[in-house]
Amino acid sequence: MKRIGRLATLLVLASEEEREKMMEKRKKEGLRICIGKVGTMHAEKIISAVMTAAKREEIWNGESFKEEHALYAAIMESLHGICRGQLIFNEALRTVGLTFSIVRGQMLEAPGDWVAVCLYGTIGPPIKGFEHEVLGLGINHI
Amino acid sequence: MKRIGRLATLLVLASEEEREKMMEKRKKEGLRICIGKVGTMHAEKIISAVMTAAKREEIWNGESFKEEHALYAAIMESLHGICRGQLIFNEALRTVGLTFSIVRGQMLEAPGDWVAVCLYGTIGPPIKGFEHEVLGLGINHI
Amino acid sequence: MKRIGRLATLLVLASEEEREKMMEKRKKEGLRICIGKVGTMHAEKIISAVMTAAKREEIWNGESFKEEHALYAAIMESLHGICRGQLIFNEALRTVGLTFSIVRGQMLEAPGDWVAVCLYGTIGPPIKGFEHEVLGLGINHI
Amino acid sequence: MKRIGRLATLLVLASEEEREKMMEKRKKEGLRICIGKVGTMHAEKIISAVMTAAKREEIWNGESFKEEHALYAAIMESLHGICRGQLIFNEALRTVGLTFSIVRGQMLEAPGDWVAVCLYGTIGPPIKGFEHEVLGLGINHI
Amino acid sequence: MKRIGRLATLLVLASEEEREKMMEKRKKEGLRICIGKVGTMHAEKIISAVMTAAKREEIWNGESFKEEHALYAAIMESLHGICRGQLIFNEALRTVGLTFSIVRGQMLEAPGDWVAVCLYGTIGPPIKGFEHEVLGLGINHI
Amino acid sequence: MKRIGRLATLLVLASEEEREKMMEKRKKEGLRICIGKVGTMHAEKIISAVMTAAKREEIWNGESFKEEHALYAAIMESLHGICRGQLIFNEALRTVGLTFSIVRGQMLEAPGDWVAVCLYGTIGPPIKGFEHEVLGLGINHI
Repeated sequence: MKRIGRLATLLVLASEEEREKMMEKRKKEGLRICIGKVGTMHAEKIISAVMTAAKREEIWNGESFKEEHALYAAIMESLHGICRGQLIFNEALRTVGLTFSIVRGQMLEAPGDWVAVCLYGTIGPPIKGFEHEVLGLGINHI
Repeated sequence: MKRIGRLATLLVLASEEEREKMMEKRKKEGLRICIGKVGTMHAEKIISAVMTAAKREEIWNGESFKEEHALYAAIMESLHGICRGQLIFNEALRTVGLTFSIVRGQMLEAPGDWVAVCLYGTIGPPIKGFEHEVLGLGINHI
Repeated sequence: MKRIGRLATLLVLASEEEREKMMEKRKKEGLRICIGKVGTMHAEKIISAVMTAAKREEIWNGESFKEEHALYAAIMESLHGICRGQLIFNEALRTVGLTFSIVRGQMLEAPGDWVAVCLYGTIGPPIKGFEHEVLGLGINHI
Repeated sequence: MKRIGRLATLLVLASEEEREKMMEKRKKEGLRICIGKVGTMHAEKIISAVMTAAKREEIWNGESFKEEHALYAAIMESLHGICRGQLIFNEALRTVGLTFSIVRGQMLEAPGDWVAVCLYGTIGPPIKGFEHEVLGLGINHI
Repeated sequence: MKRIGRLATLLVLASEEEREKMMEKRKKEGLRICIGKVGTMHAEKIISAVMTAAKREEIWNGESFKEEHALYAAIMESLHGICRGQLIFNEALRTVGLTFSIVRGQMLEAPGDWVAVCLYGTIGPPIKGFEHEVLGLGINHI
Repeated sequence: MKRIGRLATLLVLASEEEREKMMEKRKKEGLRICIGKVGTMHAEKIISAVMTAAKREEIWNGESFKEEHALYAAIMESLHGICRGQLIFNEALRTVGLTFSIVRGQMLEAPGDWVAVCLYGTIGPPIKGFEHEVLGLGINHI
């Protein structure tokens, strides 16, 4: 049984060193994995950063609208965990600093590929030291 | 620096055995921690299960409305990550099986107590094997 | 200039005695006014209580779908102020005790009739003494 | 170019007779199509009616969680057009009488299968003659 | 029985030629109708395009706030079908190309005027060929 | 029994003169109170105006993230009453002119401090005279 959501979450919570080991091991099992960082006050920057990193790492086929559509929906779902209500940052006077992970492969007992997107970091007003943790996970068939 | 959100998340992702060790160690550092499980098609059952477990474990003072209010808001925020849009289960024909954790204590560099609630498990229609992972994290001052 | 939203709000905040005086005076100015109470864990009970009271007091013509539609939308808007996010009570394990007012008549400088609905009271879990105030105002053309 | 959303919408707006002709012609082109009716005050009844009809007509493979997940998301999207805000019916004191259509096949220029769900009918309080039209369309990759 | 929602929807789905015929016929029956196009990444551009076109075609009286308020709410409702959750475009990294129709007149069996707004077109990321259909319908008393 | 929500609401509805008297009297009772105005098409301007005024008047301790977090959440809740659905202004082509009040102190029977934020004014398209009243109230423990 493969829990890609759990893996994606552990990756964003891990130290750099642990992360490398986990990725190496899991990639050998056939999973496609990608990790990155983004800090912003605009949702579209998060979406764009995740899509672009995932494309470069060949998590999804850049010529397939179906795959783009699948990953996009997973990102939007992960943003619900980050925003907890309204998908706005700047308009709500808050900024985020996030690490993101994307894991693509088999999930639980369902055949075929699925994709998990996890965002983790801090959120708060643009005042130094005023921030708390935040985490979002989205999963979709791809 | 104490990341209670990260700790709450690692707790729900851990095996029973790891969980015991983590809790023991962290409780010694002054954190109040509680873990439980709930499976349901009704949001109020999740809220109730978390509130009750946290009260029994003395995470919050059952006579303080302020503390009840703080924990309640953290649970509602964690439900946004689970529901990703509309806070409904039965009405959306979906059921969840969740492990929850509650961690109360100091957070990052902010003085005073904060509380983190993490929910993790699976969501899907009431059909065996049709489910994927889901995770929500909420944090509030208490 | 007639501020029916301000009037509707003052009415729910007033003491019984003040309320009578205010209503008497304003009805003479041509406004139609109605006040009532409702305590519940279900949104439909609030909607139903307001619609029924307003119909009995002839705030709206019970045979006009246009007027029903106008008042309904104003009630839904006032519920947004009460719920602050998701229009759920029981599912969010919270109960309300509300006073409501409905004022119909001319508004500001706009010709024709408008209707204002104000809800005010307390919200909280079903635990004695655990509650805070809550208020919602909705306005629509009728 | 195949516009499955347009087709799904035209089907729910058509007369019985026109509908038969359209379905016959389009099925020959390789599209899978299914139509049905549902009247209710509960969102889960709509979801269930559409899922069941689509399964019986072999629009989706009843053993594939991926396909169930794809169709479910399309239904949820179509419900946003019906509810226009909060996905509630009974709790908002409103009832719907809907015709639904499901079309599966190729879409626009994107390779692979997509599915469109269209809901059309009337919404209103449970009072005879108090109702207006309502329509929702959802599209997803499958 | 006049179904202005159905008519508004058929108009946006029709070819240019069919559209002319439909409009001509229905205008003779006393309906006020207007059609236009808008492509954008900003919700306010859609609202503005519909309001302006409808004013120019005298669907609503540009000096009446009541009528402006009625049409505005109908447009907002139609946007819920387009956005399916959060009323954002640019912030969600998506762009739309829409045809819109506005129909004003008698509705079903309800006396007095109602207005229907229908939006139909495509939505997707700003990548050529990556888009699917989208449709929204809003109806209000005016 | 102290109803800080009621007081905050009465303050925004009062005339300048009444307001002065009410503030003077209530401050003597130990409540911290602040009032201001803001006109804008951007939610972040409202949040910023309230936070800044409240900091200057020492309603909250500018060095405490806990207090900033508490007041921020109260403002966001009051915005739900203003926006009634989606927390957007410019994107929904609407502008607001608001008076705001902040009251901090004891609430009802709950020990410890709570904070109430009330916003009241008008909302509408950027057309002179096209506007109706709007009101939002948010309350949180601090």
